[in-house]
Amino acid sequence: MLKKVGWISVISLLIFAGIMGASFGNEEDATSAKGNNKKVENVIYMIPDGFSSDYASNYRAYKGEEVVWDSHLKGLFTTHSADSDVTDSAAAGTAMATGEKTNNGVIGKDTNGNNLETILEKSKQHHKATGLVATSTITHATPAAFATHVEDRNNETEIARQLIKSEVDVLLGGGMNKFIGEEEGGNQEDGELMQKAQDTGYILAENKQEMLEQNIDIKKDEKLLGLFADEALSPELHRKDTEEPSLEDMTTHAIDQLNQNKKGFFLMVEGSQIDWAGHDNDSAYAMSDTEAFEKAVQAAIDFAEEDGETLVVVAADHDTGGMTTGGYDQMELNANILNDVTATGEYMANQLDEERSNVHEVVNTYTGFKLTEEEIESIETAEDPKLAINHVVSARSTIGWTSTGHTAADIPIYAYGPSAESFSGKLDNTDIPKLIEKAMKLK
Amino acid sequence: MLKKVGWISVISLLIFAGIMGASFGNEEDATSAKGNNKKVENVIYMIPDGFSSDYASNYRAYKGEEVVWDSHLKGLFTTHSADSDVTDSAAAGTAMATGEKTNNGVIGKDTNGNNLETILEKSKQHHKATGLVATSTITHATPAAFATHVEDRNNETEIARQLIKSEVDVLLGGGMNKFIGEEEGGNQEDGELMQKAQDTGYILAENKQEMLEQNIDIKKDEKLLGLFADEALSPELHRKDTEEPSLEDMTTHAIDQLNQNKKGFFLMVEGSQIDWAGHDNDSAYAMSDTEAFEKAVQAAIDFAEEDGETLVVVAADHDTGGMTTGGYDQMELNANILNDVTATGEYMANQLDEERSNVHEVVNTYTGFKLTEEEIESIETAEDPKLAINHVVSARSTIGWTSTGHTAADIPIYAYGPSAESFSGKLDNTDIPKLIEKAMKLK
Repeated sequence: MLKKVGWISVISLLIFAGIMGASFGNEEDATSAKGNNKKVENVIYMIPDGFSSDYASNYRAYKGEEVVWDSHLKGLFTTHSADSDVTDSAAAGTAMATGEKTNNGVIGKDTNGNNLETILEKSKQHHKATGLVATSTITHATPAAFATHVEDRNNETEIARQLIKSEVDVLLGGGMNKFIGEEEGGNQEDGELMQKAQDTGYILAENKQEMLEQNIDIKKDEKLLGLFADEALSPELHRKDTEEPSLEDMTTHAIDQLNQNKKGFFLMVEGSQIDWAGHDNDSAYAMSDTEAFEKAVQAAIDFAEEDGETLVVVAADHDTGGMTTGGYDQMELNANILNDVTATGEYMANQLDEERSNVHEVVNTYTGFKLTEEEIESIETAEDPKLAINHVVSARSTIGWTSTGHTAADIPIYAYGPSAESFSGKLDNTDIPKLIEKAMKLK
Repeated sequence: MLKKVGWISVISLLIFAGIMGASFGNEEDATSAKGNNKKVENVIYMIPDGFSSDYASNYRAYKGEEVVWDSHLKGLFTTHSADSDVTDSAAAGTAMATGEKTNNGVIGKDTNGNNLETILEKSKQHHKATGLVATSTITHATPAAFATHVEDRNNETEIARQLIKSEVDVLLGGGMNKFIGEEEGGNQEDGELMQKAQDTGYILAENKQEMLEQNIDIKKDEKLLGLFADEALSPELHRKDTEEPSLEDMTTHAIDQLNQNKKGFFLMVEGSQIDWAGHDNDSAYAMSDTEAFEKAVQAAIDFAEEDGETLVVVAADHDTGGMTTGGYDQMELNANILNDVTATGEYMANQLDEERSNVHEVVNTYTGFKLTEEEIESIETAEDPKLAINHVVSARSTIGWTSTGHTAADIPIYAYGPSAESFSGKLDNTDIPKLIEKAMKLK
C-alpha cells in the first residue's frame, strides 16, 4: 500500500514536472521566436504592386515619420520569373499565390500550362472564407493569380468568368466592364455572367455606400461582388471626386464580412496602382497611392492586434521604375513637397491645350510649383508631356527613376502576428505562399 | 525501506525530468534564436562603402549565383546624418563606430565638437586586440571614424597622427603619403611620424610580400602598419599589376595577427572603393571591387565558422550613385557581361587621345564591346568622357544610376555568428555599434 502511494506520488510529481518543463519550454519559445507556434486562423496578404525598398524610404520622407510597416520588416526576396530576370505582375502574382515560377504573362499555370493550386484555393478547401480586394480591375493580374488560371493575363473577361466560378466570398475592386460584356473583344454575353454571379449567391455593390450597406451572411452562402468602376478605380489623388470606396474602406469591409466565418479567412489586398505610378515615373501618384495602401495595412494590423490569430504579410511583387531615394546629385530628400500635389501627371497632361501654351498654368495649378523656363520647355517639347511633367515633379522631389518598366530589385517583406518571424532573411517570392501555408497549417 | 527507495526514485526521476525540461528549453532557444546568448569574443565589422541592396542584387547577377552574405541577411537600416538626409562617409562612419549621429564631414565627434568613444576604443579598453583594414588610404573617413576624432575628414595627416597615437594593433591600407609628410599642405614633419610609429612598436610593411612576412608578437606590444601605396590602393581591376595585397589578403593576415590575443579582437574591414565606383557610375569597377570584398567576407566567415565565438557584421554606410537592378526599360539583367571588362572607366578615359579619335579602339580593348555609332559619339562629345564610357558600359549591363553622389536608400545588414539575430528588422546606423557592444558585453 505504501509502495502504491509512493508510485502514485512519483507519477503525480512527474506529471507536474512534465507540465513545468513543457510550459518553461513554451515560454522560451514564445519569447525567442515571438509566438511562431501560435495558431494562424486568418491571413491578410497585402501586395503593394510595384513597391520596393526605395518606395518605402521615399514614402517615409513624404510622410515625415516612421511608417506602419517599418517595425515589421523581416527580410528581402528575389522576384525573377521562369522566363525573365525581371518579372511582370502575372508571373509574380502566380509565384506569390502558388509557390511556383511561371512565364511572364501567365496567371495560375505552370510553364507547361498546368493549373497550379493557389493559397486562396487551399484556404477554401480548409473551409476558410476568402476575399480579393484591388484598386485595379478585380480581374487584373495580381488578384487574378489567386483564384484563376489563364494563359494570358489580358483575357480579363475569362478571368471574370473564373472569378465568379471560384466562389471567392468577397470580391472588391474595379472592372464592371469585364463582367457585363461591355469589354471590347470580350467574350461575355451581355448580362449572362452577372446573372450567373447572382445565381451563385453574389450580391452586387456599385459604390461605397452600397458596399457599406451590404452585410452578407456567409453561413447562408451569400457573397459580395463590389465593382466600383467600369475599369480601374481612381488614383487616390482623384478619388475624392467619386463615390468609390478607399482601399482602407474595402479592406475593413472585407475583413468584417470574412470574419463571420468560424474557421477563419484568407484575404488578399492589392494596392494596384503604385505600379502604374511607377510606370509613369509619377512620384506624387506613387506616394499618395502608397499612403492609401498604408491606411489599409494599418486597418489590417489593427484587426490582427485585436484578434491575436491573424497573420498580416506585406510584400510587393516587384519594383517599378527603378526608383531611388534621392538622386540628381542632391544631398537632401524633398518627397514631402509631394503632399501638395493634387493631380497625376496624366491628369495634368490632359489639361494641356494642343499647342501646350498653358504648361505653367496647368502644372502650377496642381503642384504649386513656379516652374523655371527650362522646366517649361522640357514639357513643351517632350515627346510624352505626361512623362516630362512627372520628371519635373520627380526632380524637385529628389525621387530618381531609371526605367518606365519593372526592375529586379530585391523586395522587402514585412509580417505581423503569429508566425511572422518565419519570413525572416533572404527569401524568394515562391517561398511566401509556402510559409503562409505552413503558418495556417493547411498541409 | 521501500518508502525510502520510493522517494529516492521520485527525486532521481524529478532530477531527470528537470534535466529533460531544461535541455528541451535550451534546445528550443538555440534553434529559435540561433545561439544569440553565446559569447562573442571577436568581432569582424565589414563595411562595403557605398553598397546597397541594388549592388547586392546586381552582384548576384554578375556572379550568377548566391553570394556569401545572402543567407545572412538580417534587415535594413536608415543612414541620414545629423545635418543631412543623405549622409557622407564621415558622418556614417561616426554613426557606425560610435552610435551617435554627427554632421557630414565630421569624424568621431558629435555636433558640438565633443569626442565620441568608438566601439574600437571600447574594445581596446576591454583588452581586445584591434585592427583597421581598407583599400583607400587608411586615413580615409570610414577607418578614421573608428579611432580618430577630427572636425574635417580631409585632414588626413592629423588622422594619421591620431591613428599612430591610438595604438591600433594592425593598420593595413593605402596612404603612405599621409604618414611620411609628402602630403600637399600636410602638417607632418618629414619622417617624424614614422619615427613615432616605430617608437610606438609599429613594424612597417610596404607590399604584400612584406606584409605576409610580418608576424607581430602582440604580447610584446608589436604592431603592424601596412601602407601599400602612396595614396589609395589600386581598384581590384588593376591590382594584378602591383605588389599590393588584396582585401582578402589583408583581412586574413589581420585576423591571423589579432587572433593571438587571448581576450579576443575587434577588426573593421572596409571595401572602400565600391563607393568610388558608384560616384563614377562605373559598373565594372563596382562589381569587381564587390567581388574582392566578397572574398574578404568569405575569409572572415570561414574564420568565424571555425572559431565559434566570432560575430561577423556586414553593413555598408550608404548607397552611392542611386544604383538600380535593371533599368533602361529592359526586362533582363546583363551584369554578367562585366566579368569581361578589364579596366575602370577612368583608366579607359586616360587612354583616349586628345581628339578622342580612338574611342572605339580603347573601349573595345578593355570591354570587348563592339560599340554602335551612337555610343561612340556619346563618348566623343561628352563633357566627361569617363562618365560617358561608364554610362555606355552600364546601359549594356542594365545597371541604372540616378546620381554621381550618395542617396538615402535603406541599407541591408548581414550578420553571422553568435548574436547575429539581434541585428534583425529595421534599424538605424547608430544601432549597429550599440548592438555590437551588447553582443561583446563591453558595458
